[in-house]
Amino acid sequence: MPMSNGLHIAVLGATGAVGAEILALFEKRNFPIEELSLLASERSAGKRLAFRGEQVEVRLVTPDAFQGIDVAFFSAGASRSREFAPHALQAGAIVIDNSSAFRMDPHVPLVIPEINFDAIADARLIANPNCSAIIMLMAVAPLRALGQIERLIVSTYQSASGGGAAVMQELLEETQATLQDSQNGRRPQKLLPHPYAFNLFSHNTPINEHGYNEEEWKVIEESRKIMGMPDLRINVTCVRVPVLRAHSESITVEFAHPAPREQAVRETLSRASGIRVVDDRAANHFPMPSEASGSDDVLVGRIRQDVSNPNAICLFASGDQLLKGAALNALQIAERLVASGRPTGISAP
Amino acid sequence: MPMSNGLHIAVLGATGAVGAEILALFEKRNFPIEELSLLASERSAGKRLAFRGEQVEVRLVTPDAFQGIDVAFFSAGASRSREFAPHALQAGAIVIDNSSAFRMDPHVPLVIPEINFDAIADARLIANPNCSAIIMLMAVAPLRALGQIERLIVSTYQSASGGGAAVMQELLEETQATLQDSQNGRRPQKLLPHPYAFNLFSHNTPINEHGYNEEEWKVIEESRKIMGMPDLRINVTCVRVPVLRAHSESITVEFAHPAPREQAVRETLSRASGIRVVDDRAANHFPMPSEASGSDDVLVGRIRQDVSNPNAICLFASGDQLLKGAALNALQIAERLVASGRPTGISAP
Repeated sequence: MPMSNGLHIAVLGATGAVGAEILALFEKRNFPIEELSLLASERSAGKRLAFRGEQVEVRLVTPDAFQGIDVAFFSAGASRSREFAPHALQAGAIVIDNSSAFRMDPHVPLVIPEINFDAIADARLIANPNCSAIIMLMAVAPLRALGQIERLIVSTYQSASGGGAAVMQELLEETQATLQDSQNGRRPQKLLPHPYAFNLFSHNTPINEHGYNEEEWKVIEESRKIMGMPDLRINVTCVRVPVLRAHSESITVEFAHPAPREQAVRETLSRASGIRVVDDRAANHFPMPSEASGSDDVLVGRIRQDVSNPNAICLFASGDQLLKGAALNALQIAERLVASGRPTGISAP
Repeated sequence: MPMSNGLHIAVLGATGAVGAEILALFEKRNFPIEELSLLASERSAGKRLAFRGEQVEVRLVTPDAFQGIDVAFFSAGASRSREFAPHALQAGAIVIDNSSAFRMDPHVPLVIPEINFDAIADARLIANPNCSAIIMLMAVAPLRALGQIERLIVSTYQSASGGGAAVMQELLEETQATLQDSQNGRRPQKLLPHPYAFNLFSHNTPINEHGYNEEEWKVIEESRKIMGMPDLRINVTCVRVPVLRAHSESITVEFAHPAPREQAVRETLSRASGIRVVDDRAANHFPMPSEASGSDDVLVGRIRQDVSNPNAICLFASGDQLLKGAALNALQIAERLVASGRPTGISAP
């Protein structure tokens, strides 16, 4: 599919939930692609995916699959990223990696473009952050203009999509079976360790020596790195709820000094790019997954002073886990690289 | 239904979700009932409910329906409680009121038997607390033995049952319709202002001048009263999730001094009555609605030091909203009154 002055792009993990969103965003945002390589593991190689009205075959990823690629989007899990990123970099590609493989590597920038695009400098391997960290920080980072943030207290309401397309399907099928059988929780589980229909549970990742699960630890460590605040104190509890594709978060932001007034918070958030304030008290209308799903913006509301602490304010955010939590953030990184003249010789459309 | 030495009991709101649980608990716990009056408003009067193998007709509640009643359980909403509690008290009954009508009245004890049974003294009108407050305090109150609690930070994951049987039905029907139509959120809403299937939303009660909804304000005010701690600082965010009948809560407990060690918290909670510690890190098994539903105990787990504050610990609790959150707590109040010789002349079975 020739396009003048376009990029040679690869997507590893093209058949996954995030991969599908990346392809859809390429079209929707008219990303300047001249040639598209869809890559996957054995399980998915040979499938065909629609792109700009054509069927594109998904090829098996191999070490030499990245020759001639300008930008490679990786979304096939940490182990595949560890295996193939070196080959893509060797071949000269810029790699935007959606996995956790390199996020905490001090040599790899971990980027939310609205917050720390400059961290990329001339790096060619760029990590896309954890979805819960992205959605939280989109709501929190703009508030740095109003005072020094000391501590975040967060409880998440995370959707099935964080576990991939198969977990979304499991939620739907298990819910259907529960409605038919009226045997809530009696159905043999599959990918998840616990019943999911009409249930919720602590995020099913291993618990570390501090008693925090892997997801919570990612939110803590990645947020500090993205914000450039290595001492930021974060209390986080990650919970999976029976929602399909948007994460929500109840967030308390504690400042070093008396908290900014609600109106200042509302105005600051209203001006920030990438978020939309949904905070209609009279109509009881606040951020929720049904409205965040499919939205590029992270929705933020329930803006109020914390009545338990004069230095704190409370927020509630909902963001599409597959969009800003993953595919959109990755593509925004690429778009801004293109706008800034990278890869060399390619300019903004 | 004669029974020697038994009580004359009335249940107002017998056909509701909580009323049904009260009747089931009467049988299950062998509550010493000699005569049972089931009462309801026009809408439900005339229905028949099974009790101990007989069909009992639900009668219209009237001011004189409480003659001869020893204990009346009220579960028909605050306005009916305000209307009929004076008549029941006048007739000599003890009233255990599940509504919010009298909870914050300084002359009315607000009671969780495990925490403040003694507050009843010789009162004849006793208020049953808000479900979210009960479930939170069951997990928190035992920790007073380990240090002075200064502040609670809570985000709730509340079930449909808090809105009554009709809201539970709405969740099931809307979910079924969503699965059939694949039109998430497109269905006309009924009782709730927002889509509920595969969605969640800020608790749909009016927002006060502080930006807190009614449910959140109940948790704050009622918890202070129950704990006898008028200055307890509470940060709470109440959210409805698509779960049928158990509320969950992510709780941070801040002490005035360095927090007790995890092991001390675990041991203290393990010894407390009415709760069960579910905290298996290796198996990733923590409290969840699917296991809290139908359980008399409130489940408590995710016990860990708050890495953001040396004075704080984190917990996650799940409790059956209809049982300990409502019907069971009300019946436990009555059981302990009976055990302590009230109503006069009735002794424990």
